[in-house]
Amino acid sequence: MLNIGIDLGGTKIAAGVVDEEGKILCKASIPTGAGRPADEIIKDMADLAQSLLADNGFSLNDICHIGIGSPGIINRSISEVVFASNLCWHNVPVKRLFESMMNKPVFLENDANTAAVAELMVGAGKGYSDIVLLTLGTGVGGGIIINNSIISGSHGIGAEIGHFIIHADGMECPCGNKGCFERYASASALINWGVEALKENPGSLIYSMACGNPANVTAQTVVDSAKQKDPAAMEIFERYIKYLALGIISIINIIDPQVIVLGGGVSKAGEFLLDAVRAKTEELLLFKDLPHANIELSTVGNDAGIIGAAFLDRMTV
Amino acid sequence: MLNIGIDLGGTKIAAGVVDEEGKILCKASIPTGAGRPADEIIKDMADLAQSLLADNGFSLNDICHIGIGSPGIINRSISEVVFASNLCWHNVPVKRLFESMMNKPVFLENDANTAAVAELMVGAGKGYSDIVLLTLGTGVGGGIIINNSIISGSHGIGAEIGHFIIHADGMECPCGNKGCFERYASASALINWGVEALKENPGSLIYSMACGNPANVTAQTVVDSAKQKDPAAMEIFERYIKYLALGIISIINIIDPQVIVLGGGVSKAGEFLLDAVRAKTEELLLFKDLPHANIELSTVGNDAGIIGAAFLDRMTV
Repeated sequence: MLNIGIDLGGTKIAAGVVDEEGKILCKASIPTGAGRPADEIIKDMADLAQSLLADNGFSLNDICHIGIGSPGIINRSISEVVFASNLCWHNVPVKRLFESMMNKPVFLENDANTAAVAELMVGAGKGYSDIVLLTLGTGVGGGIIINNSIISGSHGIGAEIGHFIIHADGMECPCGNKGCFERYASASALINWGVEALKENPGSLIYSMACGNPANVTAQTVVDSAKQKDPAAMEIFERYIKYLALGIISIINIIDPQVIVLGGGVSKAGEFLLDAVRAKTEELLLFKDLPHANIELSTVGNDAGIIGAAFLDRMTV
Repeated sequence: MLNIGIDLGGTKIAAGVVDEEGKILCKASIPTGAGRPADEIIKDMADLAQSLLADNGFSLNDICHIGIGSPGIINRSISEVVFASNLCWHNVPVKRLFESMMNKPVFLENDANTAAVAELMVGAGKGYSDIVLLTLGTGVGGGIIINNSIISGSHGIGAEIGHFIIHADGMECPCGNKGCFERYASASALINWGVEALKENPGSLIYSMACGNPANVTAQTVVDSAKQKDPAAMEIFERYIKYLALGIISIINIIDPQVIVLGGGVSKAGEFLLDAVRAKTEELLLFKDLPHANIELSTVGNDAGIIGAAFLDRMTV
């Protein structure tokens, strides 16, 4: 049996027909047009799903259900988006509206959790039941799955992994607090520290790789410079690894999952990142002699939103 | 039907016959004699349970099951204590040994989680399914229950709530890390800061209440002085509340329980503590307009270990 997974983003809506092994048989996308009335956007999602089927020789009869990953806070009991800032949505009954347009069961979940489902089903979390996904991008997002059940909180405001506090009185976060994990473990942290190094140290490899222009500094600039043993970049990378490991230790000491999966832009640093964060985490473990979470790199990639959405029916509630 | 709850501690073993409403009908205790072979201690526990029944006119037929709360890391799949430092236990098959001595089903759980079960069943968490208990004592312990299921981790090393890191590069913790939550939110934190104030400020109320002797400073000294608006004590209490609220915010942003219950010695500060921590937490919320966890004071008291153990059968696995 096939399912449709829809990844609703602030910029585009991507949909795919997904088989039971998590393989995407076909996919398509359209601009979201965020800011329009919710029912218009949901109508576009339904039209996208219909045309995806028609254009690829499928019919609705081939489809078991439709999963949707949406930004924002979800009320799971009524499958409603309570609040999604980048869509300007408040209390949008996505499941009800979508099911009125397409006569198939609809599952709705937060997009970060959907990505965690994808890792669990077909990615670095395959074979596990308890995983935490850390998406190291502009911010730090992620999802928590325990016993094949998505942990998103009693009020839908949990699993905001970027916003647990690892540094009281630390760097200011746009959320209003200080010292949130994502201030120290996101790609933005690497970029900010890289820009500082560029300004302070014109002899650094970061400076030359960015042609002296702060706007050219990316997370990859810092990582590539550190790989080449540029002292300024190595100092930044070590600092980054320390904070990332402190966050991972907090996750281990509270949730103790089977595996922690690193995704997002920074995870493209690959084994260089993985080896360093594994070593630092080992140093900081509370119970050094007892088994603990594996740390792995995400393997699903950009289609995690589509694939995870298609597997939402597999999660226990 | 009645059950027996046993609270195995490093100093004493307490057992009680508990009815279905969580009322203790009778109880007794003996010294643990920690350091002795595990089977001797377990034999003492079984003898204590037997004599408790006999001395109070009950028989084993009145009892449905026996629950045991033990310190240390528990392997739930085999009901074994993997490691308990204060008992010097390694891989002790408590359930198997106990069931061989008393022919009743035995449930084994970590003692901090057992206290959380007591709050859930008959205390401040009654009527909820998702709670986090914070025990603010010498350290910070606690338990996490989601959907009536104890969250203690894939390897049994989770719910170490005192050891998530809220202050990178902060105060050293005996666990080897820096900035653990319990360094800032335990009774010990209040005492340490109170002793500093006494030494630096002989005019403070803390100084006079402790008769100038640092050894006399307790958490209550600081709290009582703050209640009387002693400036040094108020500054310490506000600092304590800030860090406690930072930890609570991290718990809300990750776990988002229905209720966070404050227990342990510091919770005896009552409404004075509760009002302050509720107000500070409100300030720091990520989603200020959305519903979030209630914060409440523990109501179960010293028998939480016995009562929680007696209710272990009610937890879903």
